[in-house]
Amino acid sequence: MTAKFVIGIDLGGTNLKISLLNRNYKIISKRILSTRNYSARSQLISAIADSVGIVLADNKLNLRQVCAVGIGLPGPVDAQAGLVHFFPNIPGWKNVNLKKILEKKIRIPVRLDNDANLMSLAEYRLGAAKGADNAMCLTLGTGVGAGIIIQNKLYRGSSFAAGELGHLPVNIFGPKCNCGGIACLEAYIGNNRIMQKVEKEFGRKIALEELSRMANHGNKKAQKIWDDVGLYLGRALVAVVNLLNLEKIVIGGGIAEAGELIFKKVRKVVSEQAMPVQAKRVKILRAKLGSDAGMIGAAIFAREGSSV
Amino acid sequence: MTAKFVIGIDLGGTNLKISLLNRNYKIISKRILSTRNYSARSQLISAIADSVGIVLADNKLNLRQVCAVGIGLPGPVDAQAGLVHFFPNIPGWKNVNLKKILEKKIRIPVRLDNDANLMSLAEYRLGAAKGADNAMCLTLGTGVGAGIIIQNKLYRGSSFAAGELGHLPVNIFGPKCNCGGIACLEAYIGNNRIMQKVEKEFGRKIALEELSRMANHGNKKAQKIWDDVGLYLGRALVAVVNLLNLEKIVIGGGIAEAGELIFKKVRKVVSEQAMPVQAKRVKILRAKLGSDAGMIGAAIFAREGSSV
Repeated sequence: MTAKFVIGIDLGGTNLKISLLNRNYKIISKRILSTRNYSARSQLISAIADSVGIVLADNKLNLRQVCAVGIGLPGPVDAQAGLVHFFPNIPGWKNVNLKKILEKKIRIPVRLDNDANLMSLAEYRLGAAKGADNAMCLTLGTGVGAGIIIQNKLYRGSSFAAGELGHLPVNIFGPKCNCGGIACLEAYIGNNRIMQKVEKEFGRKIALEELSRMANHGNKKAQKIWDDVGLYLGRALVAVVNLLNLEKIVIGGGIAEAGELIFKKVRKVVSEQAMPVQAKRVKILRAKLGSDAGMIGAAIFAREGSSV
Repeated sequence: MTAKFVIGIDLGGTNLKISLLNRNYKIISKRILSTRNYSARSQLISAIADSVGIVLADNKLNLRQVCAVGIGLPGPVDAQAGLVHFFPNIPGWKNVNLKKILEKKIRIPVRLDNDANLMSLAEYRLGAAKGADNAMCLTLGTGVGAGIIIQNKLYRGSSFAAGELGHLPVNIFGPKCNCGGIACLEAYIGNNRIMQKVEKEFGRKIALEELSRMANHGNKKAQKIWDDVGLYLGRALVAVVNLLNLEKIVIGGGIAEAGELIFKKVRKVVSEQAMPVQAKRVKILRAKLGSDAGMIGAAIFAREGSSV
């Protein structure tokens, strides 16, 4: 009897989301906790382990009915060893073998990966990137993260650090980035940078949802801000497309909610400025799985392991 | 009896180079013709076919002792179909199925690919990129071409157009490029651009070899020109390294002859500005196989086919 269910977890700076999925990676039940309730690392690990137990109990399942637990994490992870290198936004996690610790607690096989990789895996298998041999999926938020599918497999790079689209330099001279780089894409289109620009432009704080509404209602200054986001993102994607000749680029995350404002500009920049063969081949699409993507990707990786 | 030998051909805008290689891809005999002697397409194709015959005769071999012919070509090629899309620097080659035409003439299986891909394949298998799971090999010349090795295989992209490092935008605003792009790397460090800059700076034409000598002897203006080449190339490689987390980047071709002047600067930019994990992992090395790389790569692809 092979286990029918799998657990997919998405740990973010804000929420800890746990879900139970069936063989087809359909979410059967979901639990959301606030990450900030667990300030110490050991508390957060216990909360993860306890949640697994609660999900099992809620669904009247025993350990043997769950084949594995997958976890998407907000930072660089050695997906083979199950080692967390660190989390940029959660202190106290330097070089922690979370796989080992959790497996001891919950007695189910655990697999870990970076959240951008797992979101991409989900979009590739069940979402907007489905059917593409070569694709990139990105999430726009405070950071700009991406996962790369190459020849039908998640490509993690030589030290599990591939996909850092947010740290593609888009200018020779420009602002210094926290990563050590200069003029990184994220330094122009990360949420915080957009907010700063908005405050400077309008003399007050405006939520990005509101900024989108304003642009959609014809506000020129708001339109210009989104247009610039599209220009910078588009230019980074010209680099990606010329270099990797991808079939699909899928965009999700907060800023992507600005919708056609960004997509229209990004598509225009890529179609006009990428090389003709590459520009013709690539489709730039909106992500399909929304905020469940991380949990679904975690479940796929947990069940299928290194073959994905 | 399996055929012992393989023929590797490198067709460039200047030279047509044909070589006979043994099972270990050692070049046994080599023949170099001037491409410009054959202005019509049919003449050039006949010259290739005739050369194969001459190489066989010179080495007292019959058709059955050669398993295949591989050809590296200076433009985009559909390596699966054996179709030449076009050559930027040789007119008259739009959508030519060179594989079919040549196989009919020479009665030996033929495989074609882009020259940058085949040079990379050679450096990966027998040169400076040996042993790396993930690598990029680039040639600096009039153009900036590159081939990418991902998970131990040549990565060609979804329409055989991956690796266009020369058309990575390095600035948001900048010179228009022939490819349709803006501020492409090639528009800053292609041979012709360097020559233009030299003429402007020194008021006369200076060969790049001479420019290297001047820089090595302390000429500040010459040093500044190479330093800028290193800066621009370095920044493009920061993008590549952050995105692909490669183990090795191998640099060859004309400009690379400027040697330590460029390598030192490129390595400095990458080590200071790429993300720490990626910067630590990557080695930036000089190509090993020189101008034979294209023929060797062609021979490897011809013999081993789609498994490489």
